[in-house]
Amino acid sequence: MPFKFEVLKTDPSGARLGRMTTPHGVIETPAFMPVGTAGTVKGLTQQALEQLGVGMLLANTYHLYLRPGHELIARLGGLHRFMSWQGAILTDSGGFQVFSLADLRKVGDEGVHFRSHLDGSAHLLTPEKAIEVQRALGSDIGMVLDECIEYPADRERTRGAAARTLDWARRSRSLLDNIGLGSFDVGAGSDPGTESAKICNPEQVFFGIVQGGTFPDLRRENACRLVELGFPGYAVGGLAVGEPHELTCEAATAAVEELPGDKPRYLMGVGKPEQIVDFVRCGIDMMDCVLPTRNARNGCLYTRQGPLHIKNARYAGDSRPIDETCGCMVCMRYSRAYLRHLFQANEILAAVLNTHHNVHFFLDLMRAIREAIAFGSLSRFSSELQARLETGQS
Amino acid sequence: MPFKFEVLKTDPSGARLGRMTTPHGVIETPAFMPVGTAGTVKGLTQQALEQLGVGMLLANTYHLYLRPGHELIARLGGLHRFMSWQGAILTDSGGFQVFSLADLRKVGDEGVHFRSHLDGSAHLLTPEKAIEVQRALGSDIGMVLDECIEYPADRERTRGAAARTLDWARRSRSLLDNIGLGSFDVGAGSDPGTESAKICNPEQVFFGIVQGGTFPDLRRENACRLVELGFPGYAVGGLAVGEPHELTCEAATAAVEELPGDKPRYLMGVGKPEQIVDFVRCGIDMMDCVLPTRNARNGCLYTRQGPLHIKNARYAGDSRPIDETCGCMVCMRYSRAYLRHLFQANEILAAVLNTHHNVHFFLDLMRAIREAIAFGSLSRFSSELQARLETGQS
Repeated sequence: MPFKFEVLKTDPSGARLGRMTTPHGVIETPAFMPVGTAGTVKGLTQQALEQLGVGMLLANTYHLYLRPGHELIARLGGLHRFMSWQGAILTDSGGFQVFSLADLRKVGDEGVHFRSHLDGSAHLLTPEKAIEVQRALGSDIGMVLDECIEYPADRERTRGAAARTLDWARRSRSLLDNIGLGSFDVGAGSDPGTESAKICNPEQVFFGIVQGGTFPDLRRENACRLVELGFPGYAVGGLAVGEPHELTCEAATAAVEELPGDKPRYLMGVGKPEQIVDFVRCGIDMMDCVLPTRNARNGCLYTRQGPLHIKNARYAGDSRPIDETCGCMVCMRYSRAYLRHLFQANEILAAVLNTHHNVHFFLDLMRAIREAIAFGSLSRFSSELQARLETGQS
Repeated sequence: MPFKFEVLKTDPSGARLGRMTTPHGVIETPAFMPVGTAGTVKGLTQQALEQLGVGMLLANTYHLYLRPGHELIARLGGLHRFMSWQGAILTDSGGFQVFSLADLRKVGDEGVHFRSHLDGSAHLLTPEKAIEVQRALGSDIGMVLDECIEYPADRERTRGAAARTLDWARRSRSLLDNIGLGSFDVGAGSDPGTESAKICNPEQVFFGIVQGGTFPDLRRENACRLVELGFPGYAVGGLAVGEPHELTCEAATAAVEELPGDKPRYLMGVGKPEQIVDFVRCGIDMMDCVLPTRNARNGCLYTRQGPLHIKNARYAGDSRPIDETCGCMVCMRYSRAYLRHLFQANEILAAVLNTHHNVHFFLDLMRAIREAIAFGSLSRFSSELQARLETGQS
């Protein structure tokens, strides 16, 4: 199935109900993607992901490039086959992780020189290399390389990073046009010395990324220029890095207003449940975040009444499920008392069950949001959600 | 269902095909019980245990007594309900763990004074207390308290521990006779001050334990005396503590020869796959061991050609399953290359998938052993297994 995106319905707020067709299945949007950093959503089997109804997950190019290596994955048939996952996969460009390395990286116009956090080895990530690695991984949606900056950052620094991001997007567009999908061997990018392997996902597409920090006008300008290059979808990057929620929404809205209505919009790295509704109302179609999985491992469980910290002594003898209105496998079977015991005893099953529940919660939230858009009740849904969370437990 | 044991067929070697009826299901014997120390088989959901066909698992009284506490578990309806497991559960007496504490315990005729490995708190484990705690947990099969000693131990020390074990078995028998099943409240044992809770498993039974170290005559004598007390099943304890395999078999055989043929025999804490067949041929019906689960977490995977160490670089690009003749969920879906990657990246899924495979391997071995007994081919099966394992991979 070649990549396709349709908007089925638009809410007065700007929220969209959509359907994205990928080489590995159809995704209903707005969609939330669990994060499978190293080719695994920590604590969940691929069978569990299927049972949860995960349509698309995110994998991190940086991590897979370093270990086990994109060439190895290509030789084994690509990431889908490597991890035995027949749903859709989106890969990031590696840029965000590389920029997070702080002292271990140096940015130039050519790309980013960085040292591996695993063994200190030196690497150069260029826009071309980011494409090469993601082609080898064979994800359904790849990302072009962008320059992420910290918050707060001043206007000049932000403008510079946005300009470089645009330059890199041009180089990426040019490489993608030259190679032609399906005729691109691993190693044909910036580094012709690497071992060649067959392309595992000839219908893979790449999204452009809008930068511009928290300056709405820079976001607008960057989005306009990016759209001139023409991508099948657009990400809004460099947000959710510490700025207030209102600024995230403002910057995202500014970018979205310049993006074409018939292409999917992906807000990278968000968000909390109550924020997700806001982002959907900004016209965002796709999101990803480590919150449900990372918080699960820290014992923070999502409920319709707000987060529940399972290590709290008050749950020691509590025979109720995490969330009495949740229909997930964990809530159907296990008590808070048992989950607290597993967490206190540092048992593997704590991470497994907590993650299962939290991912189910986020997917359930997205289902409820899509239904609310379909029934024209998103505004009421959003108010009720906020009210519930404000009176919640801790 | 009240406890019942039937021997269906006996092999010339002494191996028995049997059927054990417990309050929580029927177990085909010879049976292997995975170890669920703290009320969880590390890395496996209860759904996975069901899918694997686990009929009975072992839980450790010592660990559950300390955390979350037997009274809490009793208030929550017993261990089956607490961990949401409707199969059978066997609990040990806590003795083995307490004796392993070395500097933290002191044995006397009354019982064992010990300090918790978690918080250093002082406790006294008596034969009566061991029963009280296990009654609160509500396992299907409990164990009376025995005195475990190290290997090597001289004859006098071994004789003393066996005598004390027998004395404790008498006290246990006496308490069990006095309380009468079904009328025993938690707290009615040695420590009347503890909170009372209803009995969760009125049809629970307790096995006696034969001691006697590696001295066959002491094993025989201890078994004879124990049988006079009359238990519904007998365990052989204090073995697999470092002695050569031949001595384990010799001591187990000596004990088994004095045990009644119509009662199940449980060899505690064994064993390696190739040893399990030998123990079955000694007339053993039940075994438990942490090997499949602990080794899984260390990357040691069992195959029909011997153990496979998944961290070995040779598996980095190996697209084959762990064991090409294995039908488990892991071998049906995941490659050695992916499993090696997960192990190298220290991912939770490594422990989850490795454990699933190893437990499946042990249960498959037991199925094959039972079939071999049924078809009268156990001797040939045993020879072939040894030959395969000797030519195996590493």
